[in-house]
This record gives sequence, C-alpha cells and structure tokens, in this order.
Amino acid sequence: MFNFEVVAESKNTRARAGLLHTLHGTIETPVFMPVGTLGSVKSLSPEELLESRTQIILGNTYHLYLRPGCEVISQFSGLHEFMNWNKPILTDSGGFQVFSLAKLSKISDEGVIFQSHIDGSRHMLTPENIVEIQICLGSDIIMCLDECIKYPSNREETKDAMELTTRWAKRCKKTWGNGNNGLFGIVQGGMFKDLRKISADALVDVGFSGYAIGGLSVGEPKDLMFEIADFTLDILPDSKPKYVMGTGTPEDLVKLVNIGADMFDCVLPTRNARNGQMFTKYGTVNICNSRYKLDKGPIDPGCTCYTCQNYSRAYLRHLYIAKELLAYRLNTIHNIHYYISLMESMRNAICKGEFEAFKKDFLEKRGIL
Amino acid sequence: MFNFEVVAESKNTRARAGLLHTLHGTIETPVFMPVGTLGSVKSLSPEELLESRTQIILGNTYHLYLRPGCEVISQFSGLHEFMNWNKPILTDSGGFQVFSLAKLSKISDEGVIFQSHIDGSRHMLTPENIVEIQICLGSDIIMCLDECIKYPSNREETKDAMELTTRWAKRCKKTWGNGNNGLFGIVQGGMFKDLRKISADALVDVGFSGYAIGGLSVGEPKDLMFEIADFTLDILPDSKPKYVMGTGTPEDLVKLVNIGADMFDCVLPTRNARNGQMFTKYGTVNICNSRYKLDKGPIDPGCTCYTCQNYSRAYLRHLYIAKELLAYRLNTIHNIHYYISLMESMRNAICKGEFEAFKKDFLEKRGIL
Repeated sequence: MFNFEVVAESKNTRARAGLLHTLHGTIETPVFMPVGTLGSVKSLSPEELLESRTQIILGNTYHLYLRPGCEVISQFSGLHEFMNWNKPILTDSGGFQVFSLAKLSKISDEGVIFQSHIDGSRHMLTPENIVEIQICLGSDIIMCLDECIKYPSNREETKDAMELTTRWAKRCKKTWGNGNNGLFGIVQGGMFKDLRKISADALVDVGFSGYAIGGLSVGEPKDLMFEIADFTLDILPDSKPKYVMGTGTPEDLVKLVNIGADMFDCVLPTRNARNGQMFTKYGTVNICNSRYKLDKGPIDPGCTCYTCQNYSRAYLRHLYIAKELLAYRLNTIHNIHYYISLMESMRNAICKGEFEAFKKDFLEKRGIL
Repeated sequence: MFNFEVVAESKNTRARAGLLHTLHGTIETPVFMPVGTLGSVKSLSPEELLESRTQIILGNTYHLYLRPGCEVISQFSGLHEFMNWNKPILTDSGGFQVFSLAKLSKISDEGVIFQSHIDGSRHMLTPENIVEIQICLGSDIIMCLDECIKYPSNREETKDAMELTTRWAKRCKKTWGNGNNGLFGIVQGGMFKDLRKISADALVDVGFSGYAIGGLSVGEPKDLMFEIADFTLDILPDSKPKYVMGTGTPEDLVKLVNIGADMFDCVLPTRNARNGQMFTKYGTVNICNSRYKLDKGPIDPGCTCYTCQNYSRAYLRHLYIAKELLAYRLNTIHNIHYYISLMESMRNAICKGEFEAFKKDFLEKRGIL
C-alpha cells in the first residue's frame, strides 16, 4: 500500500528525508529516478541499476503505449516482469511527450488526439485511459494527465491549461479509485505564482498520494525556475512526497532538496554519458578531451563505481572516440552512480543534521575542474 | 611459456582436444575466439565474456595500431590491462585489414604501405614492426604478417603472395626471437593445393608455435573452402595448434573440428547479434519477426545464458526494434554463449569418444526452425 513518511528534517533549510512505501518496496527520499523511456535505462542492465543502488526508475507512458504497447506488456505482469526490474517504477503521464514529440496534437476537454512520432498513427489519450494504461504497465506511481505549455506563455493560456489539468486530475482520480499504487497530481500554472497556488490548492482538495511540479525546466531562466519551485514546494502539504519533474543538474538537485523537493527524474546523467560528459564532484569531464589520451587514472578518483574501479580515462576516451557500444554503458554506469550517490549523501546529511554544511561543501567543490 | 598438447583424439575423425598453455593461462581446444576489434568485444564487458566462459579473445592489430595506437597502450602493461581482460589474447597480423580496409595499399618485399581508413594518414607495416606492435599489445599469440589475396586469384598472383608471405614469416620469426608468447605462421596458397603444400612445408621448416590457415572464407564456394581446409589441416604437424582464420557458421565449426582444426575466430556471433540474428540449436531466430511479438519464451529454451534466463523474445524484439543499446548486448551475450558452448560440447564429445554422434545429432537439429 502506497504511503509516505518524513523521517528527518533539516533545521535551517526545508530539506527532509523520507520513506516512500510502494508495492515494490520502500524508497528512501530524496530520490533520483533514472529515466527508462522504453523499458530500459539506456545501455544499462537491471543488475547495473541495482549495483548503483537505484531505487526506482521512470518509464515514459507515451513511448511505452506506442511501443511495444499494452497488448505486449499485458502478456506479462506489467513492465516489471517485461524488463526484469523488480523495484518500483513511476510512469509519467505522457502529456509532456505528446506536446513535445507527437505531430498534430489536438486538445479538448475530453483529452488529446495526436499522431505517433513513429508511424503517424492516430491516438487519443484521455484522463481515463492514461490511468488505465499506467495500471496495465503495473506502475507503482501513476501520474495524472496534464497539459504542458511552452515557455513563455501568457497568463490566459497558462490559466486555461492549468484549469484543464485540474479537471483532468479529478477524472484521473476517479478512474484510479483507491488503488494500491500511488497517484500523483501535477501542479501547473507556469510562471504565475497565483495560478500555481490555485492549481496546488485544487489538487490538494481532490487529494493525491503525492504532488509533482510540472511545467518547469522548459526554457525559463534558472532563477525563475527556482523561484517558482520554491513557491510551489512551500505550499504543497509536507505530509506528501513532492516531485520536481524533469530536473536537473547536480547543483539543481541540491538546491531543490534544500527547498523541500523529494523526488527527481532527468535524462541528464544518461544522455550526457552518451555524449561523453561525465559528472564528478569537481565538475564535468569531457572524455573526448585529448588531455586524457594517456591518462591512466579513473574518471573520478574517489568514485567506487564499476567504471572507475576498472577502467582508465585513456580507455574510456578510446572507446568513446571509436564509438564502441561499451563506451555508452561504462559512461552511463558512472553518471548514474554519481547521481544516486549524490542523493544518498544528501539524505545522510539531512539525517545527521548536516545538510547545510554538505550543501556548502558540494557547491564549492563543483566547478573546480 | 607457450606450449600445446593434444589430450584426446576422436577415433574415426581427425577431431582432437588439446591444451594450449599461454602466459595468461591455459586454453582448452577446440576453441572459439570472440573478436574484440578495438579492445572491446562489441557491447560486452570482460565479466560477460568470463560468464560465457570465453577463454581467449582476438584483437585486431591494424585497428589497435591506428587507434588508440601503441603510444597509448604502452602506458599500460599491454592490451590486457588497458581493456581489463586478464585471459589470453591473440592478435592478428593486420594483413587482412590492410588489404580490405585501407586505401592505396602498396606492397613490396619490405612491407606494405597504406593509408588509414580513418584519417588517410600514411603508415608502413613490415614483418618486423608488426611483431613489435603485437609485443607492445602484450599479445599471447602473435600472427605473422601475410599477404591476403582476393578470390579468385590466378596461380601466379597466388604463388607470388604465398612466397612473399613465407619470406615475411622468416623475418617475423627473427624479430620475435624466442618469446614467451606464441608466434603463428599463416599458410597461404589460395585454392591451389600444391601451393598450400609448399607454403605449409616452408613455414614448418622455419618452425612456429602454431599454424594458421589464411585466405579462406574470402568468397570461395563453401565446398572449396572445406576441400582446401581439409587438405591443409592434414599436412600441418599434429603436435601444433591449427587455426582456421575468420570462420565460420556453427556448421562450419563442427565440420572443421571434424577435420582437425583447433582454433577459430569470426565476427559472425557478434555481428549477427547486432543484426538481430540469434543462433539456437534448432537454427537462427530473427528477433525482428512479428511472430515473437507476444512470445514470453526465451530465445532458446535450453540455453543457460543470462539473456535466456532473464528475458523473453517479446522483450528482446521490442528492444531491438526500438534500437535500445541493451538489445545489442543481450543478443551478443546469447550468441557468444552459443558459440562457446558449442565448442565445449565438441570438446566434451571428443574426450568421451562421442564426437561422431555429436556431429550427426548437431547437424540434424540445426535448420529445424
């Protein structure tokens, strides 16, 4: 049965540590969820995710609905069995992808009609079927359908999208009933604090297992992102998990935990790995750089990941330049390990009452490289 | 110290089981060597090779010489340390790649001048430096430089190339001295048995740790390949390992072991895996086939590999169609496991005096799918 409890709070910040109980196990928060778009965290095996101590992954409903589709996944007891991953899975609502990837999306109160980016086939997502699809996927945390707007959007567009998101959220809740998995509402309202407040209040009124903040990291200035996140995190109920969607850099995560965020997902560690960008506590290593040609040291000397324990920068540079498939995997193992370890460090610091010191030290070290 | 011993011989065939002692451990023959062109068996980690019970891998001297180059690898104690593989490595001579990949190769008694297929830079390989490069790579089995000719070639071209290969082999031996690694001569002579005989005799006269048969599987009819392999394997000394280069299908391997071959390398299991072609004891599974869309069974029901133990045909089909990086790895794990297991089965059958029965059963089952 889905449940959340706060187990420690930072004194001078809003950072907190929690436990998120799901059907597939308990998650320690704050938590980062690697993105497994199509039923695979790109290049990694489930065992490698476990070795990095990944607690929960994110699956993209839009992508999985189109390919392989519910017909295939319903042959299995959901995405867990299909992809051989027995820990929790959160699935997004597909809303973001429909608006960013699909062709000719047409929106109405009923739902959104769109053409697949793969074969042009026509589909409709509604608040009802999006919940049913996620139930078919066996998701531990289901996200409501939301309307995502571009940045910048004017107040009227933003208000309309927010209100539609609220109406859809109610219908999602009705379809979900009172499932054993969690159902999260998504706060919209763009860069308008009063709209964010209306959205949050309305969703809390409906009552969800947790609350996500959507519509951030869509091109707005970083300061504005933090301002809106700060405002919105603060008005959401502290008894529920708070999820900032689609963010961010390591610095972003630390700053967002600082203001009370519990959950994150982002393609940055996986995508950057495939682009040869490796995270370290001193900054980013671009593995293509010729300075690493003869470098026998690991990516990050302090790192305990499989990649750093077994391979040199020289070898990783060689593999990457030669476009060897192993490069993408070894790089991803490192970056995911970096993100997961960062979340663990933050949680430990919160539990020990040392989060402020951790944050100061972390931000000082990053960017030295 | 490099050494070979035959430990069992089949009664009614020329199949034999042996032990090949190298600086990085003992290899049970007949053996298949997965191809690790650029210091990585494409998509696999060293641990996955070990799990498949791979005993030895092949590295391509031409590729490794150009990228990352000896400057990089000499920072490490050879390719083993560079790529984190502590079992034996055989490196080829680069001859085949110079003639098939490089631009403007120009051949003389001194060696071969060519332009890199990567950046057009000009290089020269000689019998002397090819051995030195392989010593720098830390190779356990070094191959002599040979001239590879196209099929078909006339008698004169074939004779000239064979004689040059013999002259080069003598110079390779001289450079090698009496190393603790092995040095193999490569029998050439195209499709002319008398030239093959002259080549083999001349090489045996020089004296090598083992003998390879080059210039096969270059486009000639399969029957002719077997005829030449049969003839050449027979005239090579039984006290030495016999290596048929660049072959072949599972059926080829069984038939070549039957006539006395001990060692093989081929890109087939790895390349076909990346093309969605999976080997099974009943034939080839094309994982794209829509018949596998809802198929919950493994690629090969009897297979004990990681892929077959954990993933369905439906999932593998999905990953492959979605071009997920994990697809190439899971497919390769299976195909390499298939090849390695096939070699083990042959060796066991030889040791038990049951090779003929094994061969009959194997050939009957393959092609049922």
